[in-house]
Amino acid sequence: MFDKWRGFRHKQLPAECRERLARMAVEARGNILKMTTVAGSGHPGGSMSSLEIFLLLYNMSNIDPKASRRDDRDRIIVSHGHTSPGVYASLAAAGFFDIKPALYSFRKVGSPFEGHVEQSVPGVEWDTGNLGQGLSVGVGKAIYARLSGQSFHTYVAMGDGEQQKGQIGEARRAAIKFDLNDITAVVDCNGLQISGKTSVVMPQNITGGWEADGWRVLEVNGHDLDELYEAFRTARLDGSVPYMILARTTMGRGVSFMENDERYHGAAVKKEQLGDALSELGIENNMEELLALRNDGDIPSFEIRRPEYPDVKPGEPVTYGIDEKKDNRSAFGKALLSFADANQGMDGFTMAVFDCDLAGSVKTGAFGGKYPDRFFQCGITEHSTATAAGALSTEKAISVWADFGVFGMVETYNQARLNDINHSNLKLFCTHSGVNVGEDGKTHQCIDYFGLFNSLYGWKVITPADPNQTDRVVRYVLSRPGNFAVVMGRSVTPIIPDESGEPRFAGDYEYRYGRMELIRKGEGLVLVAAGNMLAQGFAAWSRLDDKGRSISLMSVSDWSDLHPDDLSMLAEYEHVAVLEDHNIRTGLGTAVGAGMIENRFHTRLTKMGVAGYAPSGNSSELYTKLGLDGNSVAEKLRALMSDKSQAAKSVL
Amino acid sequence: MFDKWRGFRHKQLPAECRERLARMAVEARGNILKMTTVAGSGHPGGSMSSLEIFLLLYNMSNIDPKASRRDDRDRIIVSHGHTSPGVYASLAAAGFFDIKPALYSFRKVGSPFEGHVEQSVPGVEWDTGNLGQGLSVGVGKAIYARLSGQSFHTYVAMGDGEQQKGQIGEARRAAIKFDLNDITAVVDCNGLQISGKTSVVMPQNITGGWEADGWRVLEVNGHDLDELYEAFRTARLDGSVPYMILARTTMGRGVSFMENDERYHGAAVKKEQLGDALSELGIENNMEELLALRNDGDIPSFEIRRPEYPDVKPGEPVTYGIDEKKDNRSAFGKALLSFADANQGMDGFTMAVFDCDLAGSVKTGAFGGKYPDRFFQCGITEHSTATAAGALSTEKAISVWADFGVFGMVETYNQARLNDINHSNLKLFCTHSGVNVGEDGKTHQCIDYFGLFNSLYGWKVITPADPNQTDRVVRYVLSRPGNFAVVMGRSVTPIIPDESGEPRFAGDYEYRYGRMELIRKGEGLVLVAAGNMLAQGFAAWSRLDDKGRSISLMSVSDWSDLHPDDLSMLAEYEHVAVLEDHNIRTGLGTAVGAGMIENRFHTRLTKMGVAGYAPSGNSSELYTKLGLDGNSVAEKLRALMSDKSQAAKSVL
Repeated sequence: MFDKWRGFRHKQLPAECRERLARMAVEARGNILKMTTVAGSGHPGGSMSSLEIFLLLYNMSNIDPKASRRDDRDRIIVSHGHTSPGVYASLAAAGFFDIKPALYSFRKVGSPFEGHVEQSVPGVEWDTGNLGQGLSVGVGKAIYARLSGQSFHTYVAMGDGEQQKGQIGEARRAAIKFDLNDITAVVDCNGLQISGKTSVVMPQNITGGWEADGWRVLEVNGHDLDELYEAFRTARLDGSVPYMILARTTMGRGVSFMENDERYHGAAVKKEQLGDALSELGIENNMEELLALRNDGDIPSFEIRRPEYPDVKPGEPVTYGIDEKKDNRSAFGKALLSFADANQGMDGFTMAVFDCDLAGSVKTGAFGGKYPDRFFQCGITEHSTATAAGALSTEKAISVWADFGVFGMVETYNQARLNDINHSNLKLFCTHSGVNVGEDGKTHQCIDYFGLFNSLYGWKVITPADPNQTDRVVRYVLSRPGNFAVVMGRSVTPIIPDESGEPRFAGDYEYRYGRMELIRKGEGLVLVAAGNMLAQGFAAWSRLDDKGRSISLMSVSDWSDLHPDDLSMLAEYEHVAVLEDHNIRTGLGTAVGAGMIENRFHTRLTKMGVAGYAPSGNSSELYTKLGLDGNSVAEKLRALMSDKSQAAKSVL
Repeated sequence: MFDKWRGFRHKQLPAECRERLARMAVEARGNILKMTTVAGSGHPGGSMSSLEIFLLLYNMSNIDPKASRRDDRDRIIVSHGHTSPGVYASLAAAGFFDIKPALYSFRKVGSPFEGHVEQSVPGVEWDTGNLGQGLSVGVGKAIYARLSGQSFHTYVAMGDGEQQKGQIGEARRAAIKFDLNDITAVVDCNGLQISGKTSVVMPQNITGGWEADGWRVLEVNGHDLDELYEAFRTARLDGSVPYMILARTTMGRGVSFMENDERYHGAAVKKEQLGDALSELGIENNMEELLALRNDGDIPSFEIRRPEYPDVKPGEPVTYGIDEKKDNRSAFGKALLSFADANQGMDGFTMAVFDCDLAGSVKTGAFGGKYPDRFFQCGITEHSTATAAGALSTEKAISVWADFGVFGMVETYNQARLNDINHSNLKLFCTHSGVNVGEDGKTHQCIDYFGLFNSLYGWKVITPADPNQTDRVVRYVLSRPGNFAVVMGRSVTPIIPDESGEPRFAGDYEYRYGRMELIRKGEGLVLVAAGNMLAQGFAAWSRLDDKGRSISLMSVSDWSDLHPDDLSMLAEYEHVAVLEDHNIRTGLGTAVGAGMIENRFHTRLTKMGVAGYAPSGNSSELYTKLGLDGNSVAEKLRALMSDKSQAAKSVL
């Protein structure tokens, strides 16, 4: 019913809107109370302080309650996701769905109305729970508006407690650098957090921090609809700078015994007190009905339309000749540019590459030079960049982030997790991985990424073996939905030859995710090399071959989803030896071992990997030091094969 | 030779000091150039801009070059760790060690002079590489000064590029909240970072940000020894507020072709140009000698004296009776307080507990109430808190941080990694782990911690099975060095009984790290329960036992270091089934599987765990939904045991 007013079009809040919103607010407060008391948990206090903010946003911004995923909608991000009861109550009031199932199924297994806001509910733009993420999401959404040539506005609602998180500062500065003036942040300043007053728990000059970073701050009474409306309108119309609206509010607003009591941050009103609370609001108490429905009421399931992954061309693969001196990261940079060129000018093609002050090393410089409008140099702000790039990737756009492994996967693991939960399609390219980072030393050695990203259900990790495979993998991942991390080392990687001496990963070769590649066929022992270590594996194979010992050599460039047929192939050998420059506890060797035994293949397993934090040094010296170079591996395998005392045993 | 001036005691920089420092600066610049050119890599540009800062700090602060780990020393943290050549050159100039081996062994495998500053070098207080960490370390060190009653000063040298990192803001606010006025930060503002001008890469109002957070800023010429000295002295003497000294400098200072050229941020001068650079400084070029020594020169190894772990008493264990309704986190809170009480008043006993706005939930409130001076409420600043608590734990103090699993392990994984590299002894207590967090939903479900922390070589992870084991584990980890994460759920956990019905983990029971515990002896199948899931495992065992099927039940509360004897015990069964509420790819089941096959024990393995992000809901409903409750597990095991088609096979 607010359609004609949406977009904060009217100079002031029209009287009929104000009245309606005020009535909605009373009812919504009642619904917040019912929802949390029926569930026996949840966060009513902040829901009630943020309520007028939510009601104005969901009723007055440009979003169609009946088509809540239209591409031109305003994006409304709720960063303090624990205020889900307030969000659900406001969305229902604005006509997105019927409130009743939320009242009885909130926080129940199977209900879309989860404890923190999730995209299972129409109108929820982003799943949040960990604080301090929302503004970074807003940056990604505002970048999408610019790239897609749309004029939608992005709103980010936040709590005051979460202003303590550092990531928010990173996002603020990115918004200013990129002139993202179509973002409005609104901070619910109720002055309380779980442990008490924010001014006591962690004193902070919120306004000063935002202003220092270049934002304009408007302070309003967050329960005064007119003041809030005016601030939202000013922020939307200005366009010269992003605004933060600092909304002074009262936790638990509307129920006297809840007001300014931090215990209601994270606890529901007790059942016996609900009647009192509701009657203060003038709302009937139907708790008994709701409790009954909690047991047997229907739980809705909403269809959430996510954009289809863009229809793109992979471009023509590049083949590197057998004698070329090339590192995988350069092959990545070239493939990235070639992909962009192949799709440039295609209808609706949108793409962005994010960098954190390492373009020269991660080889995105050529892309940035040719497509400066699509290149986002974010400086040393990995946390916020990870989230912004993830947020963009949920839109109709190709979103690429390239960084060193230690920053792109290790430092920002949690951002990758939250992106994954949010159904992102991020293409993450990480260079300088493994001990191959060399002289930068242990703080920079990304040897743990597999233990990390294999703990994320949606991410697929690929470590290509050589520049040819890298080229094909890059095109593969850019052409399909989902989160992919393509992991590369730093140094020159030899081109792997096939039996006839031609490049192995070129010609007819087609990359298949999740499958091993037999490089050389031998017998007795199979050396399984993690993609980035295939060169060392190949060197070991060659040395043994020269001495008349013919082993098999297998390349595995992705090992989240080992295929039973491949494991079965390994099981044909007496001995499986795994070579990687990752942490030996959580890398390929462990995945192969667990996969073998689960599939009931019983063969000898030897793991070769990194058993401790490694020193700083030239990467080839490091491989030697760690026994992971071709010579050392060949020696080790020879010893293994001749050790009769290690004959296979089984307890079966 | 500066002993009598140390502590910035003199009103102005004495003339003889100034002259000497100026001479040192020329020589040190030459050493920076030699070191990086001989190594063929490294970061000369920032080393030369930070040089006067380093020289003043290492020569004029209270630190004894010949006893660089004295407990009363000033702490000097270098946050921009890539300026290691500048640090090494300055330390050598100040008499900490002979410079020559650094010149020829910098960045060579086996040399203490690693690419980023590391504690292998005397005078280096903290290994840094990932940016934005140093000020948080400083907070931990300043807290140590307060707790131990010492008056040392803490200096944190930083780069200007890293000011883009959000964590610095968290640390700034913590310093203000806790009145840590004995910290001085000094920011080397050379205006450049890898990708170019900081004002272009990511514009930032550095002074405004620090001032908004309550710091006093002094701007000086960072190459003017007198100005820098005066600022350091002012900051040290004031004591009413912490200072940030903003030092305007020139990247590559001292060599004309390097000045203000960002290419020298991360690249050495080429060999053929070194002579020119050195002659501009008036320094002889002995590169040939150094290159020869790089091959065969002696590499020193320094003895670094770390404080011994405090000699503490574990206190008397508490026993919870078989019918008590208790959650593990409450048992932790009680044990923590009892430990503090047992050691209170002991000579030199120092302890701190850090909280991030969750004391009520993680049960550190009682400790905080009784020992308010030792309780640090840090608000929602997990990244900085993780580092500060880690830094404190490297001093002669017990450092405890308690948080939800998702914040204490997942969000701050990289901080845990950097602490580990820094030989920390952090005691991390994480509650609300697994899907046991329940209604808070997937963003809060910490089901991946094992894949994460098992990737860190120094961390030991323990998930106790019940309140009695929790009590004993808490006392165990508090009483010994090393990094420990004790992981607990949220809900009430039944007391596990022994065969006679008495509490299993009490009486004579003594916790042994790394060993499994046989709970019930049966045959054919052994159910291995991850500590926090033992209650569900016990329920399954009971149901099967009631129906006359006697299986074995094993508890594993720590599985980074599975013992071969324990694996051998498992191998006595036809079938091993593993139960956990962690990610099934990277949890206990995978560790057991890989451990079995590596030890060449071949038996059937079935993993039961969490195979996808789980919904929001009551934890017992969730267990049922995921098939991890006692009933579902019993059903599954019965089916497994009767499935003849799954008879064991082996390819051996």
